[in-house]
Amino acid sequence: MKNILIISGHPNLAQSHANKAILEEVKHLLPSVEISRLDTLYPDFKIDVEAEQAKLAKADIIVWQFPVNWYSIPALMKKWLDDVFTFGFAYGTDDTKLRGKKLILSFTTASPEEAYQYGGAQNYPITDFLNAFRQTANLCGMEFQEHIVSHSMMYMEGIMPAEVLTTVQDKAKAHAKRLVNIIA
Amino acid sequence: MKNILIISGHPNLAQSHANKAILEEVKHLLPSVEISRLDTLYPDFKIDVEAEQAKLAKADIIVWQFPVNWYSIPALMKKWLDDVFTFGFAYGTDDTKLRGKKLILSFTTASPEEAYQYGGAQNYPITDFLNAFRQTANLCGMEFQEHIVSHSMMYMEGIMPAEVLTTVQDKAKAHAKRLVNIIA
Repeated sequence: MKNILIISGHPNLAQSHANKAILEEVKHLLPSVEISRLDTLYPDFKIDVEAEQAKLAKADIIVWQFPVNWYSIPALMKKWLDDVFTFGFAYGTDDTKLRGKKLILSFTTASPEEAYQYGGAQNYPITDFLNAFRQTANLCGMEFQEHIVSHSMMYMEGIMPAEVLTTVQDKAKAHAKRLVNIIA
Repeated sequence: MKNILIISGHPNLAQSHANKAILEEVKHLLPSVEISRLDTLYPDFKIDVEAEQAKLAKADIIVWQFPVNWYSIPALMKKWLDDVFTFGFAYGTDDTKLRGKKLILSFTTASPEEAYQYGGAQNYPITDFLNAFRQTANLCGMEFQEHIVSHSMMYMEGIMPAEVLTTVQDKAKAHAKRLVNIIA
C-alpha cells in the first residue's frame, strides 16, 4: 500500500469552497490518505521543518493541493517549500530523501479554462506557469506527474447566485475523483 | 523626477551577500530611491496592506529585488504580493492603481548562467520562470520591463574561499549600476 501525503496550501481552508470540498471528498473516497493542512498547522508561518521532512520522507506520492494565487502557489505553501526543501534533504547530495517520489500538483483557478491560452485573458496555457515546480521536482529527483486542475472555481457569497456554489462543489467532487483515480 | 520604489524581498537581508550589496550600491548611486525592506518591516509575515498600497500608488517605477528561491520570489515577497495586489486596487476594475507603472524584476541566482538553458542543470532559460510575473504585470496594466539578473551569486562563509565573496560583491556593484542606468 502506498503512502499518500496531501499538502493543503490554502491560506484559509475554512473559508474555501473548492479546495475544502476537494479535500473532504478525497478523504471520503480514500480514508488512508494523510492530509497536512498548512493553514491550521502554521498560521504564524513558522514551519516545523523536521516534522515536515519526516512526513515527506515516508510518503510515496506527494500531492500539493492549492488554489492558484498570482499564477503560483499561495505564500504559505511557498514558505513551506522554501523552508522544508533544504540542501541535503531535498537536493544537492547523493542521499537526498525525495528521490523517486511522485509529485502531483492538484489545483484550482478562479478564471475559466479558455483564459489560459496564448492570447487569452491570462495570456499563457497553465503549463507555462508550472515550469518552476517541474524543475523543483527535477532537481529533487522526483517524478513530476500530470497536474490536475479545475477552472472557474470561484464563488463569492452574496455576489454570485447560489447555483454557482453548487457547480463549484460538483466540480470539486469530480476533481477529487480524478485525483483519487491517479493516486489510489 | 520619477518616484522609484524598490521592494526588497530577501528573507534575511542582514545575512545576504549579494542582495544587501546591490541595495547599498543603488542607494549610494541614487539616494532618492525608496527601499522597502520586507524582512525588517514584516518579520511576522503580517503585511500592512494599506501602507504598502500607498507606497505603490505613488511610485512610477517599481523594482522587485530578490534572490531566486525555488525558481521564484521568496515566500515573504509572495505574501506581500498575495496580500497587497487586491481586487480593485491592482486589477479587476477600471480605476485600479498600478496602471502604467513600470515593473522591473532585479534578482540574483546561486547557479551559474549556463545552468539556465534547455538541457542545462536548471533545464529552462530564466525567462521561462518569469511567466507568472509577466502576467501579473499584464493583468495590472503595468509595463513589464526587461529583468536584471546576476548569476553565481552564492557565497558560503567558511566553505568557499574569500575571493568568491569579493567576486560576488563586485558583481553586486555592477548589478546595481545596471539597475540605476535603467531607472534613473
